[in-house]
Amino acid sequence: MEKETGRLEAFSDGVFAIAITLLVLELKVPQVAEHGAEPTTPALEASLLRLWPSYLALLTSFFTVLIMWVHHHIIFKLVRRADATLLFANGFLLLLVSVVPFPTAVVAEYLATPAASAACELYTTVFVGIAVAFYLVMMAAFREQTLDPEASAERVRRFRRDYKLGPPLYILAAVAARFSPMLSIGICTALWIFWAFTTGEC
Amino acid sequence: MEKETGRLEAFSDGVFAIAITLLVLELKVPQVAEHGAEPTTPALEASLLRLWPSYLALLTSFFTVLIMWVHHHIIFKLVRRADATLLFANGFLLLLVSVVPFPTAVVAEYLATPAASAACELYTTVFVGIAVAFYLVMMAAFREQTLDPEASAERVRRFRRDYKLGPPLYILAAVAARFSPMLSIGICTALWIFWAFTTGEC
Amino acid sequence: MEKETGRLEAFSDGVFAIAITLLVLELKVPQVAEHGAEPTTPALEASLLRLWPSYLALLTSFFTVLIMWVHHHIIFKLVRRADATLLFANGFLLLLVSVVPFPTAVVAEYLATPAASAACELYTTVFVGIAVAFYLVMMAAFREQTLDPEASAERVRRFRRDYKLGPPLYILAAVAARFSPMLSIGICTALWIFWAFTTGEC
Amino acid sequence: MEKETGRLEAFSDGVFAIAITLLVLELKVPQVAEHGAEPTTPALEASLLRLWPSYLALLTSFFTVLIMWVHHHIIFKLVRRADATLLFANGFLLLLVSVVPFPTAVVAEYLATPAASAACELYTTVFVGIAVAFYLVMMAAFREQTLDPEASAERVRRFRRDYKLGPPLYILAAVAARFSPMLSIGICTALWIFWAFTTGEC
Repeated sequence: MEKETGRLEAFSDGVFAIAITLLVLELKVPQVAEHGAEPTTPALEASLLRLWPSYLALLTSFFTVLIMWVHHHIIFKLVRRADATLLFANGFLLLLVSVVPFPTAVVAEYLATPAASAACELYTTVFVGIAVAFYLVMMAAFREQTLDPEASAERVRRFRRDYKLGPPLYILAAVAARFSPMLSIGICTALWIFWAFTTGEC
Repeated sequence: MEKETGRLEAFSDGVFAIAITLLVLELKVPQVAEHGAEPTTPALEASLLRLWPSYLALLTSFFTVLIMWVHHHIIFKLVRRADATLLFANGFLLLLVSVVPFPTAVVAEYLATPAASAACELYTTVFVGIAVAFYLVMMAAFREQTLDPEASAERVRRFRRDYKLGPPLYILAAVAARFSPMLSIGICTALWIFWAFTTGEC
Repeated sequence: MEKETGRLEAFSDGVFAIAITLLVLELKVPQVAEHGAEPTTPALEASLLRLWPSYLALLTSFFTVLIMWVHHHIIFKLVRRADATLLFANGFLLLLVSVVPFPTAVVAEYLATPAASAACELYTTVFVGIAVAFYLVMMAAFREQTLDPEASAERVRRFRRDYKLGPPLYILAAVAARFSPMLSIGICTALWIFWAFTTGEC
Repeated sequence: MEKETGRLEAFSDGVFAIAITLLVLELKVPQVAEHGAEPTTPALEASLLRLWPSYLALLTSFFTVLIMWVHHHIIFKLVRRADATLLFANGFLLLLVSVVPFPTAVVAEYLATPAASAACELYTTVFVGIAVAFYLVMMAAFREQTLDPEASAERVRRFRRDYKLGPPLYILAAVAARFSPMLSIGICTALWIFWAFTTGEC
């Protein structure tokens, strides 16, 4: 039975790859020449170091989206054909993935300021949305009309169980953002590292 | 009979995927530190909420372009080979699709201002152009030289009928923009939701 | 005999598609609120019309790069395998194609100013470079090591002859830029229209 | 034995192609109208020439990333299947490749200023990271689980030897940045030219 999801997967891969690469636009070249003075090497070095929230935000978003791409790939390997339901669940997921550079830029700008909580709330809310979208994509993918009949039932069952964890864990990160922005980013980081390791078992 | 449109479809997919992902660049990180004061969480939250025209514009453009991509896919499934006419009709379509982030950004900037009518006129005018381009692509695709001889005549006839509706409906949205910018965006939203459901039947 | 240029063509297509889509970033949302006054619909409409040099520059660059992509496609159809020479000729071409959004933005900014000559000189110089690069790619592609042995000799001969015209014609446009910027853009426009029609014959 | 790395290679190609094309965003349209005066052709020409650090930085980054793409291609030709280790080594490499436009923009901004050392330190440090990542990808790729059993042992051995040179050579460029920024960029340029020629032998 032929697989018909080639162009859908290629399109999704394109959106993942572009979103992940656009993250770099969030890194702004620091302006170090003050009041017409010449910029100096120590001043530029200091400015580049002060960009640490940008580096941290980029790192977290990059690997989270990369892991998502790997999971997207694994789910679609089990899909025989796409129907309208899967197409739109996937469209909702792509919308949120394509948007990731925005909350990333907001965190980069405000993580080292008193407005860090609001920035991290936005960031984690987008990822709650992505976790929900992933769950919907999986639900849409694993119906009789779309699932590859040769897919291992055990594996499908494990996905169904594991993906339920995504939304509550990101909601936890969103709640943490209110009290400790860094804890919130820390939970996001812990999550992609955790998923990276469990992916290895797939 | 071999299909020769692979590289053309892949290129078109690339333009669709990039245009859809570049929409995020329209979301500008709000600047909330006024007069050298420290930014605060309530101020940033309020600023993020005030960006609602940006979110609305992005949502409308994202799903409209996504549905278009699905339709582009469906049309080209019925095409056996591309000739120069189809190539240039498709080029005209890609030009307008690649341009979508611009009117989207204009709507995002001006929807909540007295200049909203001009912004929505630009936006809907681009989509009138896209609807015309889609009609031209379909006409070019469904000629004897290009159509897959095995394509269902009934299906081709239905496309021919349905695609005639696109341009007048977007012209309606353009006219509405003069009187009510929000109605104009509402019509655009209604259209992509409508097409999403009818796509499901294909 | 297997074709080994798939990944090279896909990579080149990616660069063409991204460069063509990044052109939209040159269209800047006009700022029409003066001195704290509310923006108005007539003011925004007037500003959008004043962007005509941006639209003209985008149109010219878009279709020129699109035609180039079509020609790139046609050349590589005749190639059996890529070697280092072809790889680097192609790399030089991709460098210049990826750079096109820059001279396009310069023309958009300065076409309606007294600095239009300098802008059009830059623009046409980049296209002289692209025409040279295309000639080099064709020369590298049509050597015994790389050419498909089944390629029609007549067709290869015609390419060899036609591609010699590219560099002198763009040099003409570059010289014209000194005297009349609009004539210079006009020659560029005439060239892509001409190539579009001759492509139809391939 | 089937090759299973198709989607991984396509995704990596996407990131390489996008990163290489985003380099153009570093070229900023010069603003030559001073104090409300009209811009003139000589002023714009002079401004465009003063952008030489941008052109040099773009050129160096473009060809370095292009050569890396070629090498990435060559390595993955020898890979039969990807496992989690290779996936994450490759993810680390893609992170650094996607980030290249940032140090490129920093060099473009500061190469002609007294802060050039800091800019070149950042630039070369990123490339030290990329050289290390490439070495890790190669190590991950050439394990028994992943290597194509038909890959030439001689060739694998030569890769193992050559790739050890990357990190120390870029560390040399990083050290040179302290004393002479131009020497540092010169070493980077020499390296991609050198790799371009040795690639030709592969």
